[in-house]
Amino acid sequence: MTPITQPYQSRLAQEAAMVLRQEPVVYPHARLPPGRGLDPAQLKRYEEDGFVQIEDFFGPEEIADFRAELQRMASDATLTAREETIREPGGRDVRSIFSIHTLSDAFSRLARHPRLLDITQQILGSRVYIHQSRANLKPGFSGKEFYWHSDFETWHVEDGMPAMRAVSCSIALTDNNEFNGPLMLMPGSHRQFIRCVGETPANHYKESLRAQHYGTPDPLHLSLLAEQGGIASIKGRAGSVVFFDCNTMHGSNSNISPFPRSNLFLVYNSVENTLNAPHGNLAPRPEFIATRENVRALTPVEPPVHRTPQAALTE
Amino acid sequence: MTPITQPYQSRLAQEAAMVLRQEPVVYPHARLPPGRGLDPAQLKRYEEDGFVQIEDFFGPEEIADFRAELQRMASDATLTAREETIREPGGRDVRSIFSIHTLSDAFSRLARHPRLLDITQQILGSRVYIHQSRANLKPGFSGKEFYWHSDFETWHVEDGMPAMRAVSCSIALTDNNEFNGPLMLMPGSHRQFIRCVGETPANHYKESLRAQHYGTPDPLHLSLLAEQGGIASIKGRAGSVVFFDCNTMHGSNSNISPFPRSNLFLVYNSVENTLNAPHGNLAPRPEFIATRENVRALTPVEPPVHRTPQAALTE
Repeated sequence: MTPITQPYQSRLAQEAAMVLRQEPVVYPHARLPPGRGLDPAQLKRYEEDGFVQIEDFFGPEEIADFRAELQRMASDATLTAREETIREPGGRDVRSIFSIHTLSDAFSRLARHPRLLDITQQILGSRVYIHQSRANLKPGFSGKEFYWHSDFETWHVEDGMPAMRAVSCSIALTDNNEFNGPLMLMPGSHRQFIRCVGETPANHYKESLRAQHYGTPDPLHLSLLAEQGGIASIKGRAGSVVFFDCNTMHGSNSNISPFPRSNLFLVYNSVENTLNAPHGNLAPRPEFIATRENVRALTPVEPPVHRTPQAALTE
Repeated sequence: MTPITQPYQSRLAQEAAMVLRQEPVVYPHARLPPGRGLDPAQLKRYEEDGFVQIEDFFGPEEIADFRAELQRMASDATLTAREETIREPGGRDVRSIFSIHTLSDAFSRLARHPRLLDITQQILGSRVYIHQSRANLKPGFSGKEFYWHSDFETWHVEDGMPAMRAVSCSIALTDNNEFNGPLMLMPGSHRQFIRCVGETPANHYKESLRAQHYGTPDPLHLSLLAEQGGIASIKGRAGSVVFFDCNTMHGSNSNISPFPRSNLFLVYNSVENTLNAPHGNLAPRPEFIATRENVRALTPVEPPVHRTPQAALTE
């Protein structure tokens, strides 16, 4: 596929604008055997809304393993001293750890989970690799907001991602409710690209990972998108997974509730959509934020089998 | 009633602590004729939860009038230059206008609305006056959070309010939904007083009205309160009203949604609960934040009659 860069210019200090999406949302793909990938209704919802949520995608034991692994990482002083670890603005709490699929064996296996690969390959119509991965820890009481943004806008401008052919997968490690700043998405917003105003400063990523000030859409277009499709918030039990298109407008409010909100975030990009040079003479962002050198098409790895108490009893 | 100041000491740099409430929630009161005041079920809910919400308390025409009046005030340069007007931290947007019941004839009449007086007199078992009033304008996109607090903790320490015998009334001028940072309350929290740690700086109010840093409860006790009674968020149409006890723990998250959230806030205090000196040699806060000099028991004033289209047709 030829990179389409013209329509998605952004941050050139011009007027904000709304541009129609050029690419498909669901790419042509081989049919999967029944029971694998998204079913037709889920795929339709993903195509129309720009996201689909699946409850109980992972079981309690798997989630317990992920949480333990994340806890281990967040209390590893060597690891939290690395640049992959991002702290809350004005605080010492860990907000995110990037590149978990390279820093942890368990999360490396997770990234190659057969069900995740089935779904992301189905949507993107090709083999896939991890463009970015991270764990987000939104602490109780003091979790800060993430302002509205399209991930693709950033990945296109700052990373040179050519086309809208990536899907994000957010795995809930904690229950998400209306009180702890759940992910909010604008259904249908993935069908338009919002050009943002303002240039990108050098080394913008260091600040933007803590609080975003550039590449933010203007209020008028956000209002239009919200009028068009409303807002949906992703609530559900730990273990639920939401897949959303790289151009779906999303954000989250602060979290003053006592309930922390943690999730794992894996971005699958098509191997036919690898990165070009960033726009406007920006230096490429580090590899841990945007995979450029180490592109590896993923092959499925079966997850570890969890013995249920029932299974143990019948042995 | 003798002022009870001992149990509710706070901000004395001691340990945080939870203290049982000394006073009733609903005070002994004369029985109102049927159809006036809260009905027995509503009164029971208020007593148990520390709040009660009533949908469609005000009709669309009344709300339109209130909004128009507030719009007029917020665009009156003379008025917004006064100290009663508080702006968002780090911005120029108006966050609150205090003392609306003295700055506006319409809101002065609103404060004396017969239904509001019936309910607040019923709860407090005496005649009432306005301890504080304000309009809160939480703008879309950039509304900031209000951290958890008990109003009484502040009014007791900073204003010398003797006892828990005040009720707050919040009138929704906009729809409140899960996206625009609705009021969150902890049911049952009004039955305990949480002593806060840390001294109060002089002139604390100037900062605290923008973002509160003192008189905030500790995470452990907040978690206990949330485990005990959960969290409730006040959603509903414009025109709904929530009455909540002065000691009910409450707060709200940020609002990145395009939907602004405005409300009018009237605090009714019992005429038997007028202010003493503030604690710890603090100077009294200004009259527009805490009525000290101009205590006037309120008498009901009938609101203006709105002609509905139906009424117009049948004439």
